[in-house]
Amino acid sequence: MTQTPTLLVCTAKDQDDWRRAVSALLPEAIVRTGIDAPPCDYVIVWKPPAELFAAQTRLKAIFSLGAGVDGLLAMPALPADVPLVRMEDGGMAPQMIEYALYVALRRLRRFGDYERSQAQASWSPRPARPRGDLRIGVLGLGVLGGEVARALAQFGFRVSGWSRTPKSIQHVACESGDAGLTRMLAHSEVLLVFLPSTPATQGLIGRDFLRMLPAGACIANLSRGEILDEAALLAALDDGRIDEAHLDVFAHEPLPPAHPLWRHARVRVTPHIAALTDPVIAAEQVVGKIRRLQAGLPITGVVDRRQRY
Amino acid sequence: MTQTPTLLVCTAKDQDDWRRAVSALLPEAIVRTGIDAPPCDYVIVWKPPAELFAAQTRLKAIFSLGAGVDGLLAMPALPADVPLVRMEDGGMAPQMIEYALYVALRRLRRFGDYERSQAQASWSPRPARPRGDLRIGVLGLGVLGGEVARALAQFGFRVSGWSRTPKSIQHVACESGDAGLTRMLAHSEVLLVFLPSTPATQGLIGRDFLRMLPAGACIANLSRGEILDEAALLAALDDGRIDEAHLDVFAHEPLPPAHPLWRHARVRVTPHIAALTDPVIAAEQVVGKIRRLQAGLPITGVVDRRQRY
Repeated sequence: MTQTPTLLVCTAKDQDDWRRAVSALLPEAIVRTGIDAPPCDYVIVWKPPAELFAAQTRLKAIFSLGAGVDGLLAMPALPADVPLVRMEDGGMAPQMIEYALYVALRRLRRFGDYERSQAQASWSPRPARPRGDLRIGVLGLGVLGGEVARALAQFGFRVSGWSRTPKSIQHVACESGDAGLTRMLAHSEVLLVFLPSTPATQGLIGRDFLRMLPAGACIANLSRGEILDEAALLAALDDGRIDEAHLDVFAHEPLPPAHPLWRHARVRVTPHIAALTDPVIAAEQVVGKIRRLQAGLPITGVVDRRQRY
Repeated sequence: MTQTPTLLVCTAKDQDDWRRAVSALLPEAIVRTGIDAPPCDYVIVWKPPAELFAAQTRLKAIFSLGAGVDGLLAMPALPADVPLVRMEDGGMAPQMIEYALYVALRRLRRFGDYERSQAQASWSPRPARPRGDLRIGVLGLGVLGGEVARALAQFGFRVSGWSRTPKSIQHVACESGDAGLTRMLAHSEVLLVFLPSTPATQGLIGRDFLRMLPAGACIANLSRGEILDEAALLAALDDGRIDEAHLDVFAHEPLPPAHPLWRHARVRVTPHIAALTDPVIAAEQVVGKIRRLQAGLPITGVVDRRQRY
């Protein structure tokens, strides 16, 4: 490996932090920033401008700093013949676990119900439930969903999961296929959404889907806003079929100030913060893959453009 | 051990459940209920009437179904020369861990801040913090506080703890004594209270105590209401020194409907449900101790009446 690899860092924010992190780990490389850089071997991107790809004519790989690549795939300028590599964890899994565990504990211990009792100054103890009683469904068992399912099962919750292709995770009832989805949803008092945004998942969670959940279920969407039909969710919250929704992602972000989700008493909004990529961990992951590519070895995380993730 | 032990179960509620659970585990015993029962060897109590002890003249031990025995010790009718045994866990530790973890995750991931942003329809992402950054203080390292400190440290939080007598818990910075208390409080962004109610702890958490915490700290009281000066807490919440309080216990329970704690925006009230004794686990614990006493062996959990726990 005598060739000096050239890298271009093009991130919407913290660009110098990313350059420093990558340079420290790959000192033999030339690391550039700016969209007017000469053609490089690799590019590391987060929400890049379309012009970027016009000048980069000899890329060997494009590394996305996000786990979801729907935004990149929607760019006509994205070269069709260059491997697109998504972030596989990047320090996001522990953060997703924290968010999911908070939602699960809130449901198990009925903190939402107690908040509503408090609003009426009503002292109303409710029976305790053991963890193994709370049925949690994890929709999407990729790197992040899989880690969340595993962690919640380890904590003692009763966890099932669904993925397009069959998976196996210890102590998690893994389902796949249409019949598996129906079974899994029928048992999910808490549904955690970790699906990628693809043509097959857009608008997937609509009225009929929500009706497959047990009455009074709780839902948390931590992946992509387009997967959830927000009007259908609001209707299900209003008629009591859904008890509480925790939303970190939305069809339009930032969520417009006039949007009814902001003001619904049974909705908790967070501003797409469920998991932020950790620059150090992400840089280690990208650099490890560049080393393998330079050595002619295969890497994981290459996006299947037909499946779109 | 040919002698047939006699037991009296006297609990404010679920008395038959308790009797069944104990009988199943100790089939050789005679298990009675009712305050007019003939003198027995052992009594298992939860908020008993004073008359109970008048008729019970040959008790070998009194078993409390609660971890806190301040209520029993305040009864003049309580025989002074009979060992009083408190519940040491009784299935309560996992529940305390759940509540404490919920509060810690809420603070780490700023869910309280996001609720306040949501009320203003404001999309305001805040930087992420790793778990090891969040400094949690556990006040009281008895059976419950000790288990909570251990679990939070294991999850990755930075945990310190304080107890009257020195303790040692893996990955927890254990302090004791007055200087240790000052040190521990100065570092506690989240303070979790697990002290017993004794003359030494009543009103302990007042104005000066709250000022020893870092500005903007969060506090959760999961043990006894008398330990916390509620007026001082309300003042500290109003001037912003305390950011959020999670209260499960109160000086007067049920919390009176007109009490300002119900209506404070930065207070979360739960109706003394942080940890409910599990009848099966508690019965196993009590029966195990009765077997040891019948065999002339020592038991743990005997209350030191001078220390009052």
